[in-house]
Parts: sequence; structure tokens; C-alpha cells
Amino acid sequence: MIANTPTPPYYAVIFTSTRTKGDNGYEKMAARMLSLATEQKGFLGIESAREDLGISVSYWSDLEAIKLWKANSEHLQAQKMGRKSWYADFKLRISKVERDYRI
Amino acid sequence: MIANTPTPPYYAVIFTSTRTKGDNGYEKMAARMLSLATEQKGFLGIESAREDLGISVSYWSDLEAIKLWKANSEHLQAQKMGRKSWYADFKLRISKVERDYRI
Repeated sequence: MIANTPTPPYYAVIFTSTRTKGDNGYEKMAARMLSLATEQKGFLGIESAREDLGISVSYWSDLEAIKLWKANSEHLQAQKMGRKSWYADFKLRISKVERDYRI
Repeated sequence: MIANTPTPPYYAVIFTSTRTKGDNGYEKMAARMLSLATEQKGFLGIESAREDLGISVSYWSDLEAIKLWKANSEHLQAQKMGRKSWYADFKLRISKVERDYRI
């Protein structure tokens, strides 16, 4: 459940969102995007939780991998639907993990 | 709900955890730590969600602010209780936000 990421540095994409009401195809697409993301070059792991606010943090080897994932054609379609139907609000932050600690 | 952070760069502390069973004083301390964190110099905001996995992302102006918060005496006591009682597992990642996007 906690992503088994390598020794830093690597990148974290922090995606925070609030949903609109209703599914509108969201769950199916979310499952597909998760599956597709894990196949991408440079993908290191993902962690997600949702209450009123949803947080998904995906981990990537470098900025180029994030750029390629952003430009993936199926993902572009999902992003379009996200803006149009699924998210009331969202924010996406690209960050470089410099240090990490575990229990 | 979505933290209203300033223009990057700033820092994100990504805290991912799984809980042990039972409260054991957790909810009260979590509320106190949230209140205390917001009073710290350099604190910019926080976003949290928990399902099986809990994710809290707190935002800070710089590494010095994170270091001071980590060393806060009341927070040190909470960290000790976290390791001992509240968390089955956790990982903490310190990252520098380089870019962000909103709807």
C-alpha cells in the first residue's frame, strides 16, 4: 500500500481533487488510468486515498517520464473528461523528493 | 479543502501511513498537531485523506521551517507515540514543489 520507492532523488506528482456528484464513468476510467500508469517508463509507484478530498501521489524517476505520461493519448482523453465531468476542483503539483524516512 | 499554496517553489512533506487498530489517543493528538502545525512559521497549508491508507501532505515555505516543526517538543512527543502506538507503517517524503496547475 505504501509505495516502495527507491532512494531519492525521484519525483512525486501530488494530485488533489474534489469530485462532482455521480460516477459518470469515473471509476472505470480511474482503474484504466491506474493500470496504464503502472506500464509507463519511469513509473515508481502510487498512493491514493479519498474522503471529501482525494489525494493521489504518483512517483516517477524523472521529469521526462512525467511529461510522457501527461502526453499519453488515452491519458489526455481522461484529463479532458476530468476537467469536464469528474472534478469540481483539482490541483496538481510536481515535486522532487529529496529525502525520505520509513518506520 | 485544496490548500491555497503560493507560486512555487515551496516544499511538500508527504506523510503516508497505515494505522494500528483502535484510537489510543490518536484523534485528539491529530487535531492538536493540525492546530499546532498551522501556527508554525513557514506553514503554507495541509491536505489529508484516509481510506486504508492515510495521506497527509503539508506545505512549507522552506526546509528550515520543516526542520523546526520536526523538532517542536510537543510534535516530538506525538512522533514518539506515532512510532509506538498509532502507525502500523509509515513513510515520510520531503519534496520540493517545482510547478503546479489548477483547473
